[in-house]
Amino acid sequence: MRQMHLVGFLQAQNCTIYASSWRHPDSRTDFLKADFFQEIARILEAGKFDLGFFDDRLSMPDRYGSDHVHTIEHGIRCVKMDPVVVLTMMAAVTQRLGLGSTASTTYFEPFHVARAFQTLDLMSDGRAAWNVVTSLNDGEAANMGHAEMMAHDARYDRADEFIEVVLGHWDGWEDDALIVDKASGRFGDGHKVHRLDFKGKYLSSRGPFTVPRSPQGHPVVIQAGSSGRGKRFSARWAELVFVAYHDVKSGKEEYDEFKAMVAAEGRNPDHVKVATLCTPICAATKAEAEDKAALIARLPLEIDALSLLSEALNFDFASKGMDEPFTDEEMAGIQGLQAIRDRVVKNTGKKNPTVRDFIVGSGRGRPRLDMVGGPKEVADKLEEWFVGGACDGFVIAAAAVPTGYADFVQHVVPELQRRGLFREDYTGSTLRDHLGLPRAMRGDWQPKRMAAE
Amino acid sequence: MRQMHLVGFLQAQNCTIYASSWRHPDSRTDFLKADFFQEIARILEAGKFDLGFFDDRLSMPDRYGSDHVHTIEHGIRCVKMDPVVVLTMMAAVTQRLGLGSTASTTYFEPFHVARAFQTLDLMSDGRAAWNVVTSLNDGEAANMGHAEMMAHDARYDRADEFIEVVLGHWDGWEDDALIVDKASGRFGDGHKVHRLDFKGKYLSSRGPFTVPRSPQGHPVVIQAGSSGRGKRFSARWAELVFVAYHDVKSGKEEYDEFKAMVAAEGRNPDHVKVATLCTPICAATKAEAEDKAALIARLPLEIDALSLLSEALNFDFASKGMDEPFTDEEMAGIQGLQAIRDRVVKNTGKKNPTVRDFIVGSGRGRPRLDMVGGPKEVADKLEEWFVGGACDGFVIAAAAVPTGYADFVQHVVPELQRRGLFREDYTGSTLRDHLGLPRAMRGDWQPKRMAAE
Repeated sequence: MRQMHLVGFLQAQNCTIYASSWRHPDSRTDFLKADFFQEIARILEAGKFDLGFFDDRLSMPDRYGSDHVHTIEHGIRCVKMDPVVVLTMMAAVTQRLGLGSTASTTYFEPFHVARAFQTLDLMSDGRAAWNVVTSLNDGEAANMGHAEMMAHDARYDRADEFIEVVLGHWDGWEDDALIVDKASGRFGDGHKVHRLDFKGKYLSSRGPFTVPRSPQGHPVVIQAGSSGRGKRFSARWAELVFVAYHDVKSGKEEYDEFKAMVAAEGRNPDHVKVATLCTPICAATKAEAEDKAALIARLPLEIDALSLLSEALNFDFASKGMDEPFTDEEMAGIQGLQAIRDRVVKNTGKKNPTVRDFIVGSGRGRPRLDMVGGPKEVADKLEEWFVGGACDGFVIAAAAVPTGYADFVQHVVPELQRRGLFREDYTGSTLRDHLGLPRAMRGDWQPKRMAAE
Repeated sequence: MRQMHLVGFLQAQNCTIYASSWRHPDSRTDFLKADFFQEIARILEAGKFDLGFFDDRLSMPDRYGSDHVHTIEHGIRCVKMDPVVVLTMMAAVTQRLGLGSTASTTYFEPFHVARAFQTLDLMSDGRAAWNVVTSLNDGEAANMGHAEMMAHDARYDRADEFIEVVLGHWDGWEDDALIVDKASGRFGDGHKVHRLDFKGKYLSSRGPFTVPRSPQGHPVVIQAGSSGRGKRFSARWAELVFVAYHDVKSGKEEYDEFKAMVAAEGRNPDHVKVATLCTPICAATKAEAEDKAALIARLPLEIDALSLLSEALNFDFASKGMDEPFTDEEMAGIQGLQAIRDRVVKNTGKKNPTVRDFIVGSGRGRPRLDMVGGPKEVADKLEEWFVGGACDGFVIAAAAVPTGYADFVQHVVPELQRRGLFREDYTGSTLRDHLGLPRAMRGDWQPKRMAAE
């Protein structure tokens, strides 16, 4: 029986993806300590999750009013630690949980990213994953010494080169290159380690790479682009894709369309898993869960949404009145997460939405609260999505940590296991084992690239 | 009584700084596993070391003959993993040991370096240190997408800007900026978090930084530059300096000269600790230690030295015959570790040394074996250096891991403790506590900079 995949959607910061979460009475406030994150890792592993995964941005939201004072005052994702360091602390206290982190193709060197994630794959015995993002906004550009963000499509062109370099370096050492024979003095077979010699339009890197092949062959590649260009990028490169489908019906359409794109790239659609975002609010009973949801619904502030929209769309929402419509030029000029813009147009039915329409239509900074209930209700919803063919699994965001995950693991996971929809225990040791992906073999990403060109 | 500081000089690779070490019968060969490094960390912590510290380069040695086949065949530092990831795995299994890693000012963005090390300082409860290097050779440049290495002095000019950005970001949050009061909804005082707005010749970064102030104020700054420009850089910025003094007498002169340079920068010389490199070979008795040394002396190959010299001096030693002298132009043109070149001239007394002179005069790839003995002999040597005023402590390199450290901790540390030269136990919790450095206060690096200009 096909079983679902579960991903914990984490932030190396002071809140979950919901900026308001730090105000939740259950939220731990020691987010600058390793134990805060290690406890989440232990909970996810107890719940047999495929992986925990860190989102990242290289700046705090301060596009709104060109100011960060409100960001700090309200705690709107203002703390952002290095996710790889935090993830590694989680790796050290777990044995099976997969470990994913975001790293930007816009502001890092591919040699560095390849080395960091391959090292994590070795140090964690095969549990690492890299979430490829192209970065979003002017705040990140300014922190990373660039005058402004690259245009949307150029970012993806650079990202294509970036991932070719990373995958190329990961392929630098053949599986049996290491010998390590003290008696003969042969450390390795020098002809089984290869230079990359990549020269592209945006990037170049020579090699040879300095990290031998890892237990997974190489880390799992994650992507979450939902624009047209982002989906093509995912279809070409990703092995695990994060989406935020709206409902089962339209989700199934998007899922089928995306899997067809994967097949068109010459790849096996079963080897690209699609996990959709949700925020289950669960408890022992439906009534208890509804009380929890009511509390959560009271936490978000309007300023949370305005600040996060300004950041994600790279547009200062303070520059317009609440009921002033966006002009055609403004709509076309949005260079950040274009999928949010498009969702607002779709959800509100307006091609020139107002600021208020953006807040409501995007749902930014506010849990959807469409998965609230006891074990049965939440498992029913997940089953409907999964069996309905709208996804291969779920990216679970929490309205508070660690309780959002602890509640899910306590109440919902056993019900999913009872129904045979989720593993009783890990059956393998690597993240690829959990995801049902084969070990990566050298060059197996190249044919699909050829086919695509 | 003044007590010495001890640093473990580690490599996130297949050998210690001595390429031959992997062939040592005692060397563990599971260097791609976390436990290899975690075991070293446990040993250093049992020995009350101040810190373990990772060297790093962003390429394997392949300058010799423009080829990496020999590098792999002989295991000449060919594996180089991401040291921050490996270090973080060590942080997770220790409570007191300081944790230092190298990160290059030539090939990284300062925002990233500031964030990674400040995160490690938080996750380790105040034990992080950053070793500032400017990077050396064309191999690193080629891997990191640069046509060739920057000239020596320009690298240091960039490094000056880099460290200003890093220190500036580390100062971004005031100590009491965080409030985290769920009742009032105030997460922080927005006016206590500051943008940096740095614009230099090489670098720019805006901020605000996304990581609050850490237990140490900020990570300890390490430097190891031994050229003239490198020493000036250390005197201006470093809090812990690694040196490789030749003997007690000349070491004391260099030490005094350096501490005077620190004072001339307007800084307190007691707040800049100098640790000199050594490789003690120790055992329960002198005879046993001498047997160990004899074995170690047989391990290095000539090719180890040639390959490592080519890398460090960024010059292909295969392009010259073994007994062919370097021309004046070649000597002047060396852009790598100029201190090695200068040491060869000094040690051989020749201004145009041959390739063979470089091997012998540099001692590259070969332990000096001038600290061999039982507890008494090795402690005597260390005491002579330390009490003789030639250093504040020692950077201990091992001829094999983990036994090089295990032997030292078993045999020598108790003797040093008995003499009152080394701590019986940690008396504080942070690396700054161990080093006798005050907690870093915001802006305390700025006056010295003003004074220097």
